[in-house]
Amino acid sequence: MKNIVIRNIQRAPLEVCFGLAEQGVATVHEAMGRDKLMQPHLRPIFAGAMIAGPAVTVLAAPGDNWMLHVAIEQCHPGDVLVVGVMTENTDGMIGDLISTALKARGVRGVVIDAGCRDVRTLTQMNFPVWSRAVSARGTVKATLGQVNMPVVCGGVLVNPGDIVVADDDGVVVVPKDEANTVLALSRERAAKEEIARARYATGEFSLDASNMRPALAAAGLVYLESSDEL
Amino acid sequence: MKNIVIRNIQRAPLEVCFGLAEQGVATVHEAMGRDKLMQPHLRPIFAGAMIAGPAVTVLAAPGDNWMLHVAIEQCHPGDVLVVGVMTENTDGMIGDLISTALKARGVRGVVIDAGCRDVRTLTQMNFPVWSRAVSARGTVKATLGQVNMPVVCGGVLVNPGDIVVADDDGVVVVPKDEANTVLALSRERAAKEEIARARYATGEFSLDASNMRPALAAAGLVYLESSDEL
Amino acid sequence: MKNIVIRNIQRAPLEVCFGLAEQGVATVHEAMGRDKLMQPHLRPIFAGAMIAGPAVTVLAAPGDNWMLHVAIEQCHPGDVLVVGVMTENTDGMIGDLISTALKARGVRGVVIDAGCRDVRTLTQMNFPVWSRAVSARGTVKATLGQVNMPVVCGGVLVNPGDIVVADDDGVVVVPKDEANTVLALSRERAAKEEIARARYATGEFSLDASNMRPALAAAGLVYLESSDEL
Amino acid sequence: MKNIVIRNIQRAPLEVCFGLAEQGVATVHEAMGRDKLMQPHLRPIFAGAMIAGPAVTVLAAPGDNWMLHVAIEQCHPGDVLVVGVMTENTDGMIGDLISTALKARGVRGVVIDAGCRDVRTLTQMNFPVWSRAVSARGTVKATLGQVNMPVVCGGVLVNPGDIVVADDDGVVVVPKDEANTVLALSRERAAKEEIARARYATGEFSLDASNMRPALAAAGLVYLESSDEL
Amino acid sequence: MKNIVIRNIQRAPLEVCFGLAEQGVATVHEAMGRDKLMQPHLRPIFAGAMIAGPAVTVLAAPGDNWMLHVAIEQCHPGDVLVVGVMTENTDGMIGDLISTALKARGVRGVVIDAGCRDVRTLTQMNFPVWSRAVSARGTVKATLGQVNMPVVCGGVLVNPGDIVVADDDGVVVVPKDEANTVLALSRERAAKEEIARARYATGEFSLDASNMRPALAAAGLVYLESSDEL
Amino acid sequence: MKNIVIRNIQRAPLEVCFGLAEQGVATVHEAMGRDKLMQPHLRPIFAGAMIAGPAVTVLAAPGDNWMLHVAIEQCHPGDVLVVGVMTENTDGMIGDLISTALKARGVRGVVIDAGCRDVRTLTQMNFPVWSRAVSARGTVKATLGQVNMPVVCGGVLVNPGDIVVADDDGVVVVPKDEANTVLALSRERAAKEEIARARYATGEFSLDASNMRPALAAAGLVYLESSDEL
Repeated sequence: MKNIVIRNIQRAPLEVCFGLAEQGVATVHEAMGRDKLMQPHLRPIFAGAMIAGPAVTVLAAPGDNWMLHVAIEQCHPGDVLVVGVMTENTDGMIGDLISTALKARGVRGVVIDAGCRDVRTLTQMNFPVWSRAVSARGTVKATLGQVNMPVVCGGVLVNPGDIVVADDDGVVVVPKDEANTVLALSRERAAKEEIARARYATGEFSLDASNMRPALAAAGLVYLESSDEL
Repeated sequence: MKNIVIRNIQRAPLEVCFGLAEQGVATVHEAMGRDKLMQPHLRPIFAGAMIAGPAVTVLAAPGDNWMLHVAIEQCHPGDVLVVGVMTENTDGMIGDLISTALKARGVRGVVIDAGCRDVRTLTQMNFPVWSRAVSARGTVKATLGQVNMPVVCGGVLVNPGDIVVADDDGVVVVPKDEANTVLALSRERAAKEEIARARYATGEFSLDASNMRPALAAAGLVYLESSDEL
Repeated sequence: MKNIVIRNIQRAPLEVCFGLAEQGVATVHEAMGRDKLMQPHLRPIFAGAMIAGPAVTVLAAPGDNWMLHVAIEQCHPGDVLVVGVMTENTDGMIGDLISTALKARGVRGVVIDAGCRDVRTLTQMNFPVWSRAVSARGTVKATLGQVNMPVVCGGVLVNPGDIVVADDDGVVVVPKDEANTVLALSRERAAKEEIARARYATGEFSLDASNMRPALAAAGLVYLESSDEL
Repeated sequence: MKNIVIRNIQRAPLEVCFGLAEQGVATVHEAMGRDKLMQPHLRPIFAGAMIAGPAVTVLAAPGDNWMLHVAIEQCHPGDVLVVGVMTENTDGMIGDLISTALKARGVRGVVIDAGCRDVRTLTQMNFPVWSRAVSARGTVKATLGQVNMPVVCGGVLVNPGDIVVADDDGVVVVPKDEANTVLALSRERAAKEEIARARYATGEFSLDASNMRPALAAAGLVYLESSDEL
Repeated sequence: MKNIVIRNIQRAPLEVCFGLAEQGVATVHEAMGRDKLMQPHLRPIFAGAMIAGPAVTVLAAPGDNWMLHVAIEQCHPGDVLVVGVMTENTDGMIGDLISTALKARGVRGVVIDAGCRDVRTLTQMNFPVWSRAVSARGTVKATLGQVNMPVVCGGVLVNPGDIVVADDDGVVVVPKDEANTVLALSRERAAKEEIARARYATGEFSLDASNMRPALAAAGLVYLESSDEL
Repeated sequence: MKNIVIRNIQRAPLEVCFGLAEQGVATVHEAMGRDKLMQPHLRPIFAGAMIAGPAVTVLAAPGDNWMLHVAIEQCHPGDVLVVGVMTENTDGMIGDLISTALKARGVRGVVIDAGCRDVRTLTQMNFPVWSRAVSARGTVKATLGQVNMPVVCGGVLVNPGDIVVADDDGVVVVPKDEANTVLALSRERAAKEEIARARYATGEFSLDASNMRPALAAAGLVYLESSDEL
């Protein structure tokens, strides 16, 4: 493994990021054909945050936050820091100090496949983190890694500059060259869902609204009046 | 496996459900002789909900919410939807669209041995879901299952029409023909606990209030003044 | 295993406990050389509690809370009850009744390597519990254990009278004879962190503030202007 | 929960059991429409066993093997003992003593949703156990349970007398009144698979043998000569 | 945390260790009153090893095997190396090189709460390891720890010189000053079990041999002839 | 997500694969700078297999093996099939039928981030599979995926044609353009380890052979003659 920092990456434009943040993770993930959703062990440390921004990627050794310090310098306003770790780890690799520095750089939040600490302070700072665990476990600065190289986080490949969208439902990654298409598709989908929601709210069945009954019958679904007919 | 929907089931009466919801899961579970509590991986998506209602049961394929759409039509006001899944799965099989439809039917909440998404919206709707995970992962409509057949959810057998009681402590199932007995026993237990609570609040020991000292001594418990006596 | 209760233990002084509670788990854990942090599966049942106090230790059988009843009598005002369990278990071994009794004794909270129930009531009582799980599962009173003997909880050895510090980040244990030293070191560390925080908030890099660049270069970190140089 | 032992149950005939054991778990599970397979955490303590027999069911408290002693008396030659546990547990609830007694009764093996111990001796005895864990943890005899009542084990409902089929791939349950049908369907399926296996062994593609290409094309699968065409 | 190596420890005598190894983990654990059994995630890398020896204890950082190199020098013939890790970790912290060095010192095996690698070679060397995982993940030499200080491994406190007994059922720890007593109790227990085994093999019920029927009846167990009586 | 099959990929040469298979996973992983090792949940279904070959990559839906059928046709002699799955899943997505077809194509083995079934038959066929679980759970053919596109499996990005090396220690991925370098480095490392092993076998300490003592002292390691000096 080469220990490399890439200084300049191509970022998805922020206005597309803002648009995707509004749509939310579930809608964006569907608009992408149900692709590139991180595993559900990545949970927000507080409820209600909805962010999206270009990824600055980090690969770090477990229990070692040296590369996070390196990454701060590479962040631009609007970025989201994404940290993959070489082995499964829950140590508190991000806390209020690094977060203060990231916030000063205009970073919108962090997604880390390890632990987070100082969650009370981070909540007060309104600086959102999606992590595998909460843990006060401290870290060392002993092993190098990578910044702005492709990284696997939460089971998904993230290229630097890709858009990371995160909310209460989890984290999804939008490749930067698909961002506009995905935003348009997300809005289409949201509009359709709005209509469906209005119809369902009146008591209409999705079986009818989406005409599912013929397919159900064709697949062999049997309706019985009661269990006595079994 | 037969792909069947049973239209008519015998439901426990709603007034008994309301009574059980007031007692809460811990008390009801104790009143049943500590039986039929679902595994603790089933957690509410928001705090504070306390519900009880007759179960409409669903067996679904993992990552496939077709049968949930089918189940909506079979729900009555006051019901609780209970969804077992054929394999361990965390996909977001229930979200705000299906929940809107369920709420329009008067359903009080959902217990699902898989993932839930749109948790922000569901919280705003005050529509409670107990799930194994939160995940934005979308689902397909490809494989049939069952509605209103006995199903295992959270490690417990649920028969359609059984009462499902759910709160911040988890989920318990009351067989419909035991509902009145369990409610009476729950109230008895709650009354006794109220007395115990009042006594404990004044500093009385349960060792005395429940006369545990003789049994402890008989079992061989030894008190030493300090570790020097070891 | 001997079934023993030690009546008198040497407790760390409460004023040191109050000092450590203010510093928080992450700082105290660092001040101890990153030692004696419990595993991160121990989570608070509600956010915001920050406590510290001398440990009254319990070793209990899984799903059996008999020894917790025994332990109440051994608690002094300001204590924290620490419960290790003989096998991995998630049953609700602590609930509102025992907590009412503990609170009446002036106990500040509970750390238990098993489940907790009645979390809604405990939250209303503002009585904090750190547990492995939330579960309504009831318990028996059949097997003895120990009170105020050394116990392993969350992977850490706790001696009776050691200080247990717990907050949103987890739980750490301070040996009673190191308490003053750890408090002093915690305050030193907090002061240094305050300075670092202020510098980071203005945009200064930790790479410069902590002079990390030479060590990074010595370790072989390579900066490239873009991925084209790879 | 009522503490009950049912003495007389209706058993599936042994010759059907022998037939199902020959077919193996995967084939039987498919023949049942992919139903009633236990969760994969149930693993054999040694490789190579293939058994099937009528279930004598036990519900036991975690870490308590009292009801296993009770169950021995209810076993007939050819039976399989199936043990569900009230809470998730890994204690060694079955070992060489109980297994010696079961073997003396002609029992063919044990499926237990808890731990197993004495695995070296059990292997020498050629007495197979499928368990959640291997653990030497000893058990108590303090809490009652049930024998020959319906029980959930490995996430599947088992009725007393149902056929339990177990091999290196896991454990599946065949309701006793479906046994003959399932056996016939299993044999049909095995015969078809034998033909497919022979064709595949010669290099024929399942895409052709099962005519999957049109459905794949209809679903939208695109073949590209190389990634340059992306 | 102080980074300390203790050169001289008091070891339990080897002849007692040999005696305990013969009795096996389950028997020894029972003879100790069901105490000090490590958690069942510690599994042998190959079947059939049965060892016991005085513990040389190590506390290591996750993914860092520096202290294992330090520990080799402190080992005597007959010892068992016991490695606790500061955070949950599965990296391959022990492999064939360190094991070759340990074997040259006469060490009988290793118990490590992390990963093991080179399992094929270790099997050929007949050098047993009980570990949390198998993983080829390599380690660094960056962080100090402790040798021959008390350590928690597999949830159990191990003092240097305590006897570690390990076989296919897991790992148990015998405090050195209880070793003779435990060995005597283990032999008593084994003798009793031998008698019970002989009786069970002839078909006698433990219900009768251990006179359990009165206690079962007193506890309220009900026998019904068939489920029709429910 | 685009549903695409790439017919032609660039493969690493087989002779390099053979060389890497001889070196084994641990050595190759170290030679790569401890990079690209799959997570340790991927375990072989039988011991002793050591393979390496160019990856044919598959992305499949959970519980759906349609794309595995598609992939067979794209395999060449010497290939290793690598299957990533969209959500965490343990279903038996590979069994003896597909394996027969793969073996007929000359495929050397399968790495799948899901379940495997028919393990007895696969063992008899000597066809190795590294999987997350063993499960008889059957699959559907309903959802498309990808063949020979980059895929994440076991937490590692695999590009089609990369070399997959797998043995009892796990699975590592060698990018095809680094294959020769990694093979050379692996051989160098193996030669050095051979020398170290020979020295260790005679009782020489790695502390001396690798001159670790000065660094340990510099890091602050303290040797005490006995615990009395603490």
